[in-house]
Amino acid sequence: GQSTHGRGHPPYRRRVQAEQIAEEFPVVAIDSDALAAARLLAEHRLPGIVVTDAAGKPYAVLPASQVVRFIVPGYVQDDPSLAGVLSETVADRSAEKLRGKTVRDVLPEHLRDVPAADADATVIEVAAMMARLHSPLIAVVKDGELHGVITASRLLAAALRV
Amino acid sequence: GQSTHGRGHPPYRRRVQAEQIAEEFPVVAIDSDALAAARLLAEHRLPGIVVTDAAGKPYAVLPASQVVRFIVPGYVQDDPSLAGVLSETVADRSAEKLRGKTVRDVLPEHLRDVPAADADATVIEVAAMMARLHSPLIAVVKDGELHGVITASRLLAAALRV
Repeated sequence: GQSTHGRGHPPYRRRVQAEQIAEEFPVVAIDSDALAAARLLAEHRLPGIVVTDAAGKPYAVLPASQVVRFIVPGYVQDDPSLAGVLSETVADRSAEKLRGKTVRDVLPEHLRDVPAADADATVIEVAAMMARLHSPLIAVVKDGELHGVITASRLLAAALRV
Repeated sequence: GQSTHGRGHPPYRRRVQAEQIAEEFPVVAIDSDALAAARLLAEHRLPGIVVTDAAGKPYAVLPASQVVRFIVPGYVQDDPSLAGVLSETVADRSAEKLRGKTVRDVLPEHLRDVPAADADATVIEVAAMMARLHSPLIAVVKDGELHGVITASRLLAAALRV
């Protein structure tokens, strides 16, 4: 960013910028274990996870609602009415569906656009992007690298000064 | 539910049911203060909130990504490119947009379907609904009343036995 975008908050530029409210957040590599990614989300109660490519750059953002898709058999995704007639065996072995698979294997096609904001984006810009993309997380990118993540609740806390 | 759906888990019915993993969760009434609802979500880092009607029944589920819409001026929602040229004054006063408004006033039209599961739904049924509706929360309804809420991370924890 330019020098006027620094952390000094001079009185003539008081607006909050994305990089100031971005937080560190667990990320998973695209070729890492899908089961480990799902466990990470479950254990830390995350609203979603950032998936990075081999170079460590943001590749996708997986909302928690789409990570749960990992445990739904394909034929149930195609016909949800089948979920109710699954045997207990299938329902109880949902974790096995993930064994040996990578995040890349289970990443839905429609999520391969990264909801990413520049480091100097405003709270309103990030909010507008989040609402439009229905994403619980926005990746904040600075100089082409992942700088941090803004969750919806973090964004509201910043906007409402909670 | 029927007697075989009880909490005794006899060996011939081991599958986990929605009511067993549902949790208590903050809810907001449709005619309550929109600013208070946004603060609740921010303070507790919730993935979303359940909106109830005057009778206390589930009316809508608001994902956090849609609550952030509350602070985005209407003209920016219509034309996101305007977000970058907002004056600092507008950006810094985003909370004032909510003052005096109720949740009903700011509830997006497209969210008025409640992602709700029956108390005896399976983990796979809830997961399939969550993935299809892109909802971070599913309301669990028993005998017509809100019984609790299942978040995506809670569902994964149950499925993966984290």
